[in-house]
Order: sequence, then C-alpha cells, then structure tokens
Amino acid sequence: MVDNGSVGIVETKHWRFAEPPNTLELRSGAMIGPVDVAYETYGELSPERDNAVLICHALSGDAHVAGRHGPDERKGGWWDVMVGPGKGIDTDRYFVICSNCIGGCKGSTGPSSTNPKTGRPYALDFPMVTIQDMVRVQHALVTEHLGLERLLCVTGGSMGGMQVLQWAIDYPEMVVSAVPIASCARLSAQGIAFDEVGRQAIYSDPSWNDGDYYGGEPPKRGLAVARMIGHITYLSDSSMRAKFGRNLQDREEVGYDFGPPDFQVESYLRYKGGSFVERFDANSYLYITKAMDYFDLRADYGSLINAFRNVQSRFLVVSYSGDWLFPTYQSKELVRALQANGVVTTFCELESEYGHDAFLLQDEQLSQAIREFLRHTHNVVRRTDPSEE
Amino acid sequence: MVDNGSVGIVETKHWRFAEPPNTLELRSGAMIGPVDVAYETYGELSPERDNAVLICHALSGDAHVAGRHGPDERKGGWWDVMVGPGKGIDTDRYFVICSNCIGGCKGSTGPSSTNPKTGRPYALDFPMVTIQDMVRVQHALVTEHLGLERLLCVTGGSMGGMQVLQWAIDYPEMVVSAVPIASCARLSAQGIAFDEVGRQAIYSDPSWNDGDYYGGEPPKRGLAVARMIGHITYLSDSSMRAKFGRNLQDREEVGYDFGPPDFQVESYLRYKGGSFVERFDANSYLYITKAMDYFDLRADYGSLINAFRNVQSRFLVVSYSGDWLFPTYQSKELVRALQANGVVTTFCELESEYGHDAFLLQDEQLSQAIREFLRHTHNVVRRTDPSEE
Repeated sequence: MVDNGSVGIVETKHWRFAEPPNTLELRSGAMIGPVDVAYETYGELSPERDNAVLICHALSGDAHVAGRHGPDERKGGWWDVMVGPGKGIDTDRYFVICSNCIGGCKGSTGPSSTNPKTGRPYALDFPMVTIQDMVRVQHALVTEHLGLERLLCVTGGSMGGMQVLQWAIDYPEMVVSAVPIASCARLSAQGIAFDEVGRQAIYSDPSWNDGDYYGGEPPKRGLAVARMIGHITYLSDSSMRAKFGRNLQDREEVGYDFGPPDFQVESYLRYKGGSFVERFDANSYLYITKAMDYFDLRADYGSLINAFRNVQSRFLVVSYSGDWLFPTYQSKELVRALQANGVVTTFCELESEYGHDAFLLQDEQLSQAIREFLRHTHNVVRRTDPSEE
Repeated sequence: MVDNGSVGIVETKHWRFAEPPNTLELRSGAMIGPVDVAYETYGELSPERDNAVLICHALSGDAHVAGRHGPDERKGGWWDVMVGPGKGIDTDRYFVICSNCIGGCKGSTGPSSTNPKTGRPYALDFPMVTIQDMVRVQHALVTEHLGLERLLCVTGGSMGGMQVLQWAIDYPEMVVSAVPIASCARLSAQGIAFDEVGRQAIYSDPSWNDGDYYGGEPPKRGLAVARMIGHITYLSDSSMRAKFGRNLQDREEVGYDFGPPDFQVESYLRYKGGSFVERFDANSYLYITKAMDYFDLRADYGSLINAFRNVQSRFLVVSYSGDWLFPTYQSKELVRALQANGVVTTFCELESEYGHDAFLLQDEQLSQAIREFLRHTHNVVRRTDPSEE
C-alpha cells in the first residue's frame, strides 16, 4: 500500500560507532561511546554518488522524515509534504538521509540510553551535546557508514537549520549546497527565555526527580507545559486567530469554572501537550533545548563573517514573514555574512500567516524553491564533475 | 521623607460592602458578600468634585499606585512614574483613586479571603469574576463610599484598559473621559493560549491541590513558571536583545550543565518568577487570567460598534509599537468602533522598543499625552459645568 507521492513503507535503521575502546569526544570535552545512530534513507544513490541530500531535524523531530513505518501508521514522517516522488525533495532524483540527533530519544544515543558504565539509563550523567556534536555524529554516519564523500545538499528548518550552517562550516569540502530554513546563527534572548521556561516547567515536576525517573513515572505534566509553551511560539498571532479565534470548545457559553477548556485554543494546547509526552523524553527535551541555546556562531568564530570564511557551499536561505521565533532579520544576518565571503547565496522570505512551523506545512512556495535550487545545483555538479568531462 | 515628585507616604484603605443580608450578584449569577475593597487615594477632591481620576490595575497590580507605604519601602507604587505632583497624572490637580480588583490578593476579596459560609479560605469555591464584576465593585466604591457622581477620567493599561472600556459602557454618564492603554476589546487566541499555559503550570504543581493549599505550602513552582511565561510576553524580542542579549551570567563560558543559569536572561526570569510567588496568590492568578480570557465586548454586545453605542466619554486610546501581546491593531479596532459612534477619540501609537509593559516604564511620551488630555478634558468640564456658568 503505497500512498500517492509517498516513499511508501520505510524503516528506521541503526548504526553503532565509537565502540570501546573508541569513544567520541564531544565539544564539552566529555567522552562518550558507544554511540547509536537511528537513520532512514529514501531513494537511490546515483552511480556518480552525487545526489545525496541530508535532512537535519528540529527539536522534536526524528529520523522518520517521510513515508510510513507500516500501513497502520496514521501520520507519515514529519516532512512527508516535502520528501517523496515528485515532491520538493524528489526521491526519484535524490538519495535522502536523515538521522535522529545525539541527545534525542528516537533511537540515537541520548539521556534515556543505557550508560555502559552503570548498566542504567544515563539520565543527567549524559554529557551535554551541542549542535556541532550532532553534526559530527551525522558526519560519521554519512562518511564511515554510508561511504559518501559529498552531499549534494544539507537542509533543515529551525534547529535543523543550525546544523546546516555547522555542516557548511565544519565540512566545507563535503557540502555542495546548504538550505537553512527558518534558522539563525544564534538563538535570541527571547528564544533562550522560552527554552528556559520550558525547562523550568520540567524541573518543577516532582516526577522529574533530577532526571532520574526512568523505570518510574516520567515528568509528564512538566513536559506537557513545556510543549504547550513551545507550540505557541511555533504558531503566530494571525494563524491562531484564523485557526481558533475565540471559538468555544463544545459549549455555547463559557463555563465560569476551571474544568473543561472554555476555548478551542485551550483544548488544542492541552491535546498537543498531552500527546507529546507519550512520544518524547523529558530529559532529551532539556538536552536539545540547551544545545539550541548554546549555538552561537558569532561567539565561536569571533564574527559571523569569520564563521563562514571557509564555506564552499552554495546557499539558499529561507525565512517566513510570520515567524517571530526565528524572525527574518536573523536569516538576513546569515545572508549578509555569507555574501561578505563571496558565497553564492539566494535569499527567500516566504510570505506566510503561519509562524515558525510554516516550513512543516504543505507549501508549494517552499517545495518549488527547494526543487529548483536542488535541480540547478545538481546540474552544476554534473557539469563540473571531472568524471563527466 | 517625601521623594521629589512623589505623593509621599501613603496607606491602603479598606471598605466593606454587600454585607449580609445584602450580597453582590456577579455576572456568572453567583452571589457574594461581604466584599472588601482595598484602595488608595492621592491628591484632593476639588470643591466642584470634578477632578477624580480612577486608575485600574493590570493582572499583577494592586491599589498601591504611587508613593511608598513607609520610608523603608524600596520600590514605590506600580505606576509611580505616572502619578504624583507634576507628573502625567498630577496629584496637585487631580484626586486619584485605585482599588485592588475583586478576585485579587492585595486586600480585596478573592479566593484567599475567608468564605463566611465555612470560615475557611474560599479557594476554588470563590465564584468566577469578570472584568464587568471588577468594574461593578469599583463603581460601588466610587459612588457609595467616596460619594462621587462623575469621574474626570478612568484609565489603565492592559487588563486595566479592559476595565476602562467596561466603565465607559456600563456607566456612560459617569465617565467624562477614558484612557485605555495597551488594551483590547477581547483577548486574542494567542493571549488566551499564554494564559492557559500559565494556568496549566499552576495546576501541575502538586502543592496546588485543586486550589486548597491555604495554611500549607503554596504552589510556588507552578506560579513561578506562569509568571516567567507572562514576563516574556510583557517584554519584546528587541528589548530582551538590548537588555540581555546572549550575555552570560557570572561566568566566562557556558557551563554544559543544568545547574546555575548560563545566560543573564535565564537568571532574570528565575529571579522574577521567584520574587512573584512571595507576593502573589496562585489562585488569584487563575481567577484574574480567566477574567481576561472571558472579556469579549464583541460577543457581549453583538458587535464592537454596538458595545460603544451609549458611550458619552471622550477617549484617548494608546498603544505601543513594540507590544505584541496587545498589538496596535487591537487598539485601532477600538478607535474605529468608537469613531463609528461619533465618540471624540484621539489615538496615539507610541514608538517603543519595549513590549506590552512599556506603559509601566518612565516614558515622557505617555506622561505628556495623558497630562495634556486630562488638562484639556478638565477645561472642557469646567467650561460646560452648569455650576460655573
């Protein structure tokens, strides 16, 4: 049973590296190993090995970008609108890869994984990871396990876009093109603030127990509140007005009580918070938000222009007009610093009533922009590839 | 010891009404009594009784608008920048009144007050209150207790502005002029969403105990998270960038741990959350946010134009360009509906990098706008007052 325009039934694969006596050294200086990486691939690698597209996921994402894990899976992968036969990232043309980030809870090593030193889950003994560490693990997967020397494109939105930037900086010779979407060179004070309040909600849940809750009741209520906060920041005032307005939830008038939700928007948030805790680990939420907060290309390289000094990729930078969490001015900062280094950069601010999450929605504007950028980039690669001359 | 430009040492006064066998009927239909009202006044009522200015406070405010309760009080009243001799609301010219809203926790009857039926705090047996109920109680104070028949002006920001609108609608003959600041005719879906997440943070704190925590440990952690969320919405992306940026808190580099805050903005939020819980009751936070959510002049009167049909006041409507919680478009909706009713309305969007809280800051723009509006209004009153003819 294959959906129309879908990659069909897919499965998550697993790879382990940094096995003892080897370890992976993280940016903080901590050593970790073994490291498991959960990943999916779609499409076929071309004989020229020049059509690999790496997708980096956002805070709550995973390796499951497209298709379904089985005929009964209700929702497809998190970017199924973009990835598939004939779609923006066309799996008839490109070999698509995505892996769950280190620190996550969807198959890659994270705080819920077993600490080999104790035989128990790491919990807060898991070392802090950074965007650079996430990219380092992806690099190991792509080169050591998949045997690729070049990536036609690295793309992703939000935290995924941060990884795109780090890829182009750390592995300039590997990244032919880069498409950071709704992203930034460093999280704003407001972004850090929202992350911190989400973490405080988790810390405040007595079930959190300083991170040591595996085997017991997880801090569901704290994580649900964190997710609700996040959700508001991913939407926009106008999209919430259009979607919910002040419509009441299954009632003719307000209830004058603290029972069932009065308004649809309350019901929606409660549902989103409640369903998230069934699929996400609270400690991973803490680690990944910290990784986002710590990301700061200016601080790391002295200036953003300096950060991009060795970049060899072509860039398509995309922002959304309705995104107030990663506003367009942050994407423009990227564009200016890239252009200051002579990097071929296309910038595209897409008009949208939606907020930060707009890139996850069906949007022909974005699909078309990426489709054309990839096709053009692929053509350039094929024209300049020595093996084709 | 009187500060320069300060009303000096002031005290909160108390008035009780709706004493048995009387009760106050609330909008929900619930009956309540007795009702205590905490209030402060500054300046002198003129012999003509034509210079009274009523100030309505916002979510976390109280009756203590200006001056100090004693020489040791570190901070003055919440709008001390605006109210005092020679200030925007000049206590040398006007008799200023402010009362704590019903449902609050600063001296007026609210969920922490004693329920006469049980002799214990109401907790969630306190009836739900609305903006209209808050105004009704203020009206009783102003007419029955202070003996006033007219108010030269009713003003307030945020939830205070909602009360201003309700005053002009419910008591049109009493309100000579009205100055709603950073306000709206109904809270947006986004505003309801933020309120709901704050409430969920409180509900999630096991100490909340369905509201029944008086005499025990209050739900401090939940209320602190709610306040942190609120605080972010009162600031703006640009004001947070200017105030904190990504500055680290007492450290040279990030800590790679979940201990002390890495960034100043985190430290600030933790401090603000922690200090709020020492001065505010979590149940009052629940009741007052519900009152804000329920406020909806369009729903109550069929249309906003209809809501203002009997208004007799002159209006000065003020918004701030950097306010994304009560954005300028909401103030413009008020202006259009007022003007459609022929109400003399001045609209003023003040440029500010600050967010919703801008009206609480020292701001000569706002002081001057209000000073001139009050003076002009007072002159008009004196010219048209039959006793002066």
